[in-house]
Amino acid sequence: MIEGTTSHPSGEDVRMRGFSRRTTVEAALAWLDARLETLQSEPVPLSEAAGRVLAGNVQSQVDVPGFDRAMMDGYAVVAADTLGASAYNRLPLEIVGQVLPGQPLDRAIKKGQAARIMTGAPLPEGADAVLPAELTEADGGRVYARGELSPGKHVGKQGEDISAEAVVLAASRRLRPQDIGVLSSIGVAQVEVVRRPRVRLVVTGDELLPPGSTPRGCQIADSNSPMLAALVGRDGGVAVSSGIVPDQPEAILAAMRDEADIILVSGGSSVGQEDYAPRLLAQHGELAIHGVAMRPSSPAGMGQLDGRLVILLPGNPVSCLCAYDFFAGRAIRALAGRDKDWPHRRVKLPLSRKLVSVVGRVDYARVKLEGKSVQPLAISGASVLTSTTRADGFVIIPANSEGQPEGTEVEVLLYD
Amino acid sequence: MIEGTTSHPSGEDVRMRGFSRRTTVEAALAWLDARLETLQSEPVPLSEAAGRVLAGNVQSQVDVPGFDRAMMDGYAVVAADTLGASAYNRLPLEIVGQVLPGQPLDRAIKKGQAARIMTGAPLPEGADAVLPAELTEADGGRVYARGELSPGKHVGKQGEDISAEAVVLAASRRLRPQDIGVLSSIGVAQVEVVRRPRVRLVVTGDELLPPGSTPRGCQIADSNSPMLAALVGRDGGVAVSSGIVPDQPEAILAAMRDEADIILVSGGSSVGQEDYAPRLLAQHGELAIHGVAMRPSSPAGMGQLDGRLVILLPGNPVSCLCAYDFFAGRAIRALAGRDKDWPHRRVKLPLSRKLVSVVGRVDYARVKLEGKSVQPLAISGASVLTSTTRADGFVIIPANSEGQPEGTEVEVLLYD
Repeated sequence: MIEGTTSHPSGEDVRMRGFSRRTTVEAALAWLDARLETLQSEPVPLSEAAGRVLAGNVQSQVDVPGFDRAMMDGYAVVAADTLGASAYNRLPLEIVGQVLPGQPLDRAIKKGQAARIMTGAPLPEGADAVLPAELTEADGGRVYARGELSPGKHVGKQGEDISAEAVVLAASRRLRPQDIGVLSSIGVAQVEVVRRPRVRLVVTGDELLPPGSTPRGCQIADSNSPMLAALVGRDGGVAVSSGIVPDQPEAILAAMRDEADIILVSGGSSVGQEDYAPRLLAQHGELAIHGVAMRPSSPAGMGQLDGRLVILLPGNPVSCLCAYDFFAGRAIRALAGRDKDWPHRRVKLPLSRKLVSVVGRVDYARVKLEGKSVQPLAISGASVLTSTTRADGFVIIPANSEGQPEGTEVEVLLYD
Repeated sequence: MIEGTTSHPSGEDVRMRGFSRRTTVEAALAWLDARLETLQSEPVPLSEAAGRVLAGNVQSQVDVPGFDRAMMDGYAVVAADTLGASAYNRLPLEIVGQVLPGQPLDRAIKKGQAARIMTGAPLPEGADAVLPAELTEADGGRVYARGELSPGKHVGKQGEDISAEAVVLAASRRLRPQDIGVLSSIGVAQVEVVRRPRVRLVVTGDELLPPGSTPRGCQIADSNSPMLAALVGRDGGVAVSSGIVPDQPEAILAAMRDEADIILVSGGSSVGQEDYAPRLLAQHGELAIHGVAMRPSSPAGMGQLDGRLVILLPGNPVSCLCAYDFFAGRAIRALAGRDKDWPHRRVKLPLSRKLVSVVGRVDYARVKLEGKSVQPLAISGASVLTSTTRADGFVIIPANSEGQPEGTEVEVLLYD
């Protein structure tokens, strides 16, 4: 087990009495980051590729456009024919046809000739410019040029958007809507993207009823599974639930060993008699971190089992959210090939009240935005999930800080 | 047709020669906004509710927790029994049982008694406080209290998170992962959310091949359909494609009348001979706006057909993206119950070069972020979709601006 540089065997929380030393958030992140590798790729159809991460560079096999084309409605002409043309010196050209997008002219344009052309239509052979309609006067089978053109004027050249062999989009890019458009334009119907991590949710607790059950007696409905599933989805993973796992070592171990790329265990992460997950991890794999100098979620932990990462999240829902956001989300984003940094939008605004913290631990302080200021929420405990739904976001207070006085500008990470 | 206050019958683009007056972006948005209404609701299971918009307030039918519970591991006691207890005055209590989460004690605690209790377990009848394990010394069937407690200490009261009858989440809220957790905790397994708008994509153009086809001859692969489908998904809609619709009035009209909540027509939006959509809209419904004082996408338009909104997007992919972002995305977000404002993340940074515009039209200028500055991209035309994939975002230059000099701080809307 890694020992942190900051030790807090304090009595603030009796569940912690077994953590002789707590790992710093910094050390926990360093351990985690050293073990994060982007997953392999899989092909997906273009229609499902938005938001996915490119596994490799995409090189075009074709020019886009694949032909010279008109950039305006008007007439395809030989530019030299317009030499000296003006409103006072109209030069006549013979109209020999019409070109529409996708419908090329069946003949070449010769000197003295013109073809009606629409924006996007292929420039006929022989023509080298487009005379805009407003610079013309048509008269039966003839059109009069009323202005001069240089060669190439109002022509979109073959390959001006994308030239063959060019790298159009680079590996690791998260695909945007317009990227999907570009891929389509170069004939890519299927694209290699990073596989979505399969995230096993192992939620333990004999007091839990299935998500959405009406609570009864001293049983409570599982709120962590559906919350975690939504978080995993946000971060590009696919949640795979093991249901509610009984507080029995064999059942928990079996669930932790089930098919997945990464395992999140919620509940039973501390040092009490029913906290099996850390012991199982130590016994059958590696319990690298257990107890982190942070609040909430100090009972968080992490390790490896059968070569896969296991993140231990406290069962209290706020702690669970916090530990997910600090560690699990980061790991899932990295496996998915995304930026592993916080995905939240950020704003910087002054505090309307002082924000209190304790040196030696990182705080995850829920805050509300009030107009142009940040109001810390009074928090009764890690068990009150509504403290995170009343909040607009959170402020991370580093371990070396005692908090911030009123008026200090702080960075808020917004809940989306 | 609404006539804008700004008229631009200029020759900058011959396709525009038919737009005798162009509507201002402001007037176009006002017309659109006056016609946007949130769709009706539909029930969805909790597992599919993240990111959806609540159709009504959610009121809890239950207290959460539904019972008083221990907030620490320790002993459930009668607080009065600890009066005067300290390390130097240990007071003995008889251990009469153990309480685990979900497993209540089968008896009441009387004066002089204690029960082992785990965090989250229901406080036994008769007990009114939890004595943390660290303030105790156990000795066979007895435990010694080494500290004093006030009633209620380390007890989470019934309803402290959520009390019955309380409005837990308000209508119009976009559901976050923790909201899903809260809904689960109050026994909500299914939730009423705003229906996703069904967005009909009517992409026209005889020169188009299906998305992802290898371009050949003077045909190009449709890049707008897959791009629009991704944009619609981003904004909370469901894209329904009519495939590539031939440039024939009957086919376009039939597609525009097909099942949908809103219709996006891409291509054929201008005033050329093959631009059927505006004429069809004017003839069979209402063509309210046609031609907007903006660049790109000046041939954009909008109206109504059979009581549904129809947005006309130019076929050029950059114009299509721009008109989507200004008008269609806004409408879709509003139908979906979301904030109709731009969904993009924003940063404010100084320009590394001047950003040129023309008074009288709104510009959608693609820019790149270079370190801590904003670099306008040289754009060859609205047809070059890679100008939007090379860009990191865009700057909107208002109609009354001639642009901004180097060094001016501008707001960039980031492509995600």
